[in-house]
Amino acid sequence: MKDLQQPIRHMKINSTMTVNQLVNEMGGAALGAGRLAEAVDIYEAMILDKTTKFFGLSGAMTPAGMRLIIKDLIKENYIDVLVTTGANLVHDLIEAFGGFHCKGTSQIDDVELRNQEINRIFDVFLSETHFTIFENRILDILDDIDKKEMGVRELLTEIGLRVENSILGTAAKKDVPVFCPAISDSAIGLQAWLYTQTQKLNVDTFRDMREFMDICYNAKKTGAMFIGGGVPKNFILQSMIVTPKSFDYAIQLTTDSPEAGGLSGATLSEAKSWGKVAERAREVTVYGDATISLPIIVAAVIERMGH
Amino acid sequence: MKDLQQPIRHMKINSTMTVNQLVNEMGGAALGAGRLAEAVDIYEAMILDKTTKFFGLSGAMTPAGMRLIIKDLIKENYIDVLVTTGANLVHDLIEAFGGFHCKGTSQIDDVELRNQEINRIFDVFLSETHFTIFENRILDILDDIDKKEMGVRELLTEIGLRVENSILGTAAKKDVPVFCPAISDSAIGLQAWLYTQTQKLNVDTFRDMREFMDICYNAKKTGAMFIGGGVPKNFILQSMIVTPKSFDYAIQLTTDSPEAGGLSGATLSEAKSWGKVAERAREVTVYGDATISLPIIVAAVIERMGH
Amino acid sequence: MKDLQQPIRHMKINSTMTVNQLVNEMGGAALGAGRLAEAVDIYEAMILDKTTKFFGLSGAMTPAGMRLIIKDLIKENYIDVLVTTGANLVHDLIEAFGGFHCKGTSQIDDVELRNQEINRIFDVFLSETHFTIFENRILDILDDIDKKEMGVRELLTEIGLRVENSILGTAAKKDVPVFCPAISDSAIGLQAWLYTQTQKLNVDTFRDMREFMDICYNAKKTGAMFIGGGVPKNFILQSMIVTPKSFDYAIQLTTDSPEAGGLSGATLSEAKSWGKVAERAREVTVYGDATISLPIIVAAVIERMGH
Amino acid sequence: MKDLQQPIRHMKINSTMTVNQLVNEMGGAALGAGRLAEAVDIYEAMILDKTTKFFGLSGAMTPAGMRLIIKDLIKENYIDVLVTTGANLVHDLIEAFGGFHCKGTSQIDDVELRNQEINRIFDVFLSETHFTIFENRILDILDDIDKKEMGVRELLTEIGLRVENSILGTAAKKDVPVFCPAISDSAIGLQAWLYTQTQKLNVDTFRDMREFMDICYNAKKTGAMFIGGGVPKNFILQSMIVTPKSFDYAIQLTTDSPEAGGLSGATLSEAKSWGKVAERAREVTVYGDATISLPIIVAAVIERMGH
Repeated sequence: MKDLQQPIRHMKINSTMTVNQLVNEMGGAALGAGRLAEAVDIYEAMILDKTTKFFGLSGAMTPAGMRLIIKDLIKENYIDVLVTTGANLVHDLIEAFGGFHCKGTSQIDDVELRNQEINRIFDVFLSETHFTIFENRILDILDDIDKKEMGVRELLTEIGLRVENSILGTAAKKDVPVFCPAISDSAIGLQAWLYTQTQKLNVDTFRDMREFMDICYNAKKTGAMFIGGGVPKNFILQSMIVTPKSFDYAIQLTTDSPEAGGLSGATLSEAKSWGKVAERAREVTVYGDATISLPIIVAAVIERMGH
Repeated sequence: MKDLQQPIRHMKINSTMTVNQLVNEMGGAALGAGRLAEAVDIYEAMILDKTTKFFGLSGAMTPAGMRLIIKDLIKENYIDVLVTTGANLVHDLIEAFGGFHCKGTSQIDDVELRNQEINRIFDVFLSETHFTIFENRILDILDDIDKKEMGVRELLTEIGLRVENSILGTAAKKDVPVFCPAISDSAIGLQAWLYTQTQKLNVDTFRDMREFMDICYNAKKTGAMFIGGGVPKNFILQSMIVTPKSFDYAIQLTTDSPEAGGLSGATLSEAKSWGKVAERAREVTVYGDATISLPIIVAAVIERMGH
Repeated sequence: MKDLQQPIRHMKINSTMTVNQLVNEMGGAALGAGRLAEAVDIYEAMILDKTTKFFGLSGAMTPAGMRLIIKDLIKENYIDVLVTTGANLVHDLIEAFGGFHCKGTSQIDDVELRNQEINRIFDVFLSETHFTIFENRILDILDDIDKKEMGVRELLTEIGLRVENSILGTAAKKDVPVFCPAISDSAIGLQAWLYTQTQKLNVDTFRDMREFMDICYNAKKTGAMFIGGGVPKNFILQSMIVTPKSFDYAIQLTTDSPEAGGLSGATLSEAKSWGKVAERAREVTVYGDATISLPIIVAAVIERMGH
Repeated sequence: MKDLQQPIRHMKINSTMTVNQLVNEMGGAALGAGRLAEAVDIYEAMILDKTTKFFGLSGAMTPAGMRLIIKDLIKENYIDVLVTTGANLVHDLIEAFGGFHCKGTSQIDDVELRNQEINRIFDVFLSETHFTIFENRILDILDDIDKKEMGVRELLTEIGLRVENSILGTAAKKDVPVFCPAISDSAIGLQAWLYTQTQKLNVDTFRDMREFMDICYNAKKTGAMFIGGGVPKNFILQSMIVTPKSFDYAIQLTTDSPEAGGLSGATLSEAKSWGKVAERAREVTVYGDATISLPIIVAAVIERMGH
């Protein structure tokens, strides 16, 4: 029977396995293990097939300990276009400015934290003093930037050119464009508000669309890796509605379920009905915390690629 | 013992209950039932206390059958400020323009849907012909609008003034401002891209911040209802970081869990550590599909208020 | 197009709605609201079609405030066969013995609760003194029961005959058999262990299978309502593997997702591949907390039935 | 400030990492990555501290490709007491009897599968012919067993002694007791029903309690690893209510959230309020699919132990 041609290969673990060897064992299993191994295969194929590689980054990834992974992915050419949330950029900049996040606990009295001026992101703690440093530095940078009309992408490049040891800085150096459609929904937005109380900024809402669409039009083949959902996922996918293309490869790492109906949990199969993902695309969703699945995928893929 | 002073009152159901009577029975129970009853109490208190009522709307609510609820909440003064996603506005406008969504199924071949030009949102189907109507109408409206520099809020008001039977139309008539920080991440954004290929639009990214902050500063007391998370939740909450205020009442209806660390699933208690929600605020999270919990809360609250 | 024949009917809320009127409004919507309305329709059909009605009860339902609902469902002939967990029976018996559960909070120091001898079930608190009463009463009852060889079902009937104001008591009076395959996994099991240190009990593990299979074989039509998953769900469904039948109607209320692969979150469609649920069965899964969905379904159904 | 003493160490990935090296990098991060690393630390400590190691196994683990991992854990002395579901034993026996599971897909017409006599477990397919083999073999084994009065544990040992290449066989050889409180809720239960139509079996429901309690009483230190929740988790934990002990180490890998209130998603902190887990126990919950987290933990721990 055609549906019974691939027997489960039960995983065998040994005491000296590399990450990719573990992933290869997962490849014989089903459920999450099978999907994780499939994600590695797709990510590898996406690279070998010389796709334009989009990366959608949501969730609390940079505060939780993933900022070097993102930076290195950009540095090593695993990301061609980054779309992310303001929060991921802000928390990365905080560390680039010398601040830091701490391991905390979710089992704590939040009012007591408030009294200590510590902000909590589940089990991550952040002193408000680091936000103060961030605010001052960002205001200085806004002041320093030539106030021509620009889009959000250009603004982020300008910031990146001034903060070397950051995701934005690495992206600027590598000519990887960073898009952040909801930039005003972040501490950068709050500082822009303060800044525009007295000064002028000229950041156009729709200006980025043209540049983003040009990238999509010019891409020969396309691949997308989505960390979480939100605006980055939708923004990357929607571009394919108005282009004659659709994604050839797509991976999403998410904790959301499809049943709720929101875009963040929507299957990549659903995206085929919209023409966002190609009919014959290779696609997989890995359900679970991306702080676990992303490092595994990255380690396995760079082991396969040799760097 | 102080922790044992409120015995569970087991729910008693009868065959002629109103929604509020059911909710009152839930008030004696624990888990989700108890939290749902608490949400109704808080929403009622938020109204009686004459708060400025913020409403954050994410998820697939307008396509799934909730657009009249939102419209009526605005019309009946239950919402003072609406922050939402582009998708919720787009799918509402599609219906206002004469299109419609259909009940479908998630158990279907998405490629076959693609061939029929039907887009799927979990178990909602939408013919692409309705998008075509939307696109033409929006381009006409963009053409009609005075091209002065504006913010997204002003752009949405302009659209609302031209589409009566819509959420934006009702909001425009009631002078309820609608914010949509990630507007470019929507079919409105895609049309703006098309439009700006030949024409000029002047929508400033940060201009809304000032108006939004003024609302926050001027509010005496504040309450927030969050449907899902995403940008609307964060945008509403972050405003309190830079004002001397914090939310006095807050309700969130979400399918996300806190453990993933993302803002969408973050507890409202966590928001206290940031000063977004007041130390003594009344707050509750109802876990579950908002297409179930929101109608119950609304029905119970308007039953209590008499309209 | 055949897939576009049922336009979403947007919900309209008013201030005097009964629960069934709200559910009927939900019937025009999609996502969870649509599924909840479908569950009510199926439950009603299950009753009108004179099915043998199986009820699988898992989760923390009796401590959380749902014990009267279950009791009344039995009393009013909405349940013909109950399969449940030991915990649901134990926490119901605790209340029948005069103990009670209290509304507490999940935001608490569990070690402090331990010091106060309070047991926690998420936001339900229970004094250990009530367990002591339970233990004494159960040991008395075990002592009182004729020690012939029996199955778990018979043991539970014997307990029911001795504790009137309980789920087991109501079931015994109504001749509704109660099955609890994992009875040893409960405080009843723990007391049985104590009891058998000095006395003899003769409860056979597989004896219930025959009675349960006879019920399945003799049923003309069958319907199942599953509250949560676990052993009750599987036990009810597996019976159909070895009978020539399968369920004609099935509803599950669950917080589990299918993606994890466990039986608790498995779709009822999956059960068709096993022959547990009929090919043409009416079936629906309502995702979410059953302390919300169950009371709504029950209220709507008894409103329709008139009692 | 005491809450700010452990800065997040951002993960650094390289192309030659072993699994344990990856886990050590995760140890500097927060959210799921941090919890997974903590689980490895606790599992290692549980072994070094010479605890009696309980293993609760729920979910679709043996069909999904994890049966060798479980078998090897028993063989290498990483499990002292196994408590599991009937399904995990049945699907392991099916493979031991020469049957196999196949990788399939969840995107399929279940009625078509039914027509092909293929049973589905999310994305695992199983031909019904393998169940037929299972049934015959189990009936032969039941026939072969001495029909003295026994408990479920003894029955499972008898089966294990007759099926070498299985989890039960490995456990029997290693003298690792296997408990399955809900054995009647499985294909073994269904076959016992068939068998007892004509023959006699004498499996006592409560007999295992004594042996299990003796193990708990005699343990010097105790550790527990829970894969999923359900009966295995509760059965292991409840034993500590009636002994003067509580678990010194506990790990759970689960896809359930605490908010639903069920035991499967309950935090291990909640178990402290019951005295099931020690006040000072080291405990952690890793949220997510155990087919991903279990292999990582096992690989990292045996890398640390050297075998």
